Amino acid sequence: MIVVVAYDITDDRRREDVAMLLSGYGPRVQLSVFECELRSVEELRQLKAEIRARIDTLEDQVRLYPTSEQSFAERAIIGARVVEERADYWIVR
Amino acid sequence: MIVVVAYDITDDRRREDVAMLLSGYGPRVQLSVFECELRSVEELRQLKAEIRARIDTLEDQVRLYPTSEQSFAERAIIGARVVEERADYWIVR
Repeated sequence: MIVVVAYDITDDRRREDVAMLLSGYGPRVQLSVFECELRSVEELRQLKAEIRARIDTLEDQVRLYPTSEQSFAERAIIGARVVEERADYWIVR
Repeated sequence: MIVVVAYDITDDRRREDVAMLLSGYGPRVQLSVFECELRSVEELRQLKAEIRARIDTLEDQVRLYPTSEQSFAERAIIGARVVEERADYWIVR
């Protein structure tokens, strides 16, 4: 199941926290949009809980749009801009 | 047909141009996300052309995600933040 996740998060640290979380599920396609691939409804439920734990529920807002494979294949991308990942997103092991 | 439109647009003026265009199709739900309601594939085609005409196709990027009514009804919203419309979006008649 593909879930498009978009967020408006005011605080830099919380925003990067959520971006880091989402990056485990799929590509960052815009500054505040990820295309997440989830294997089950349970995994989606868990992702929502993890988002809720990272944001300020009064100050921030995150939207999760589940899409069918067919709808997802029909998405349109206009323009060539790509997200530049910054050094502070890198994980060094 | 509901189409979730998300954009990364670098230039303030182009961004507001696109926001103004999209505001004719549905609510702004995040700073760079609109939930647009389109009546036909032809209207979607036209919207894409209007977006293309307003952006810099090298600098910017807009994504349109068509969603079924059922998928759309299953979207999740976490957090209470709402977009504050600024005076320069108002249309005075």
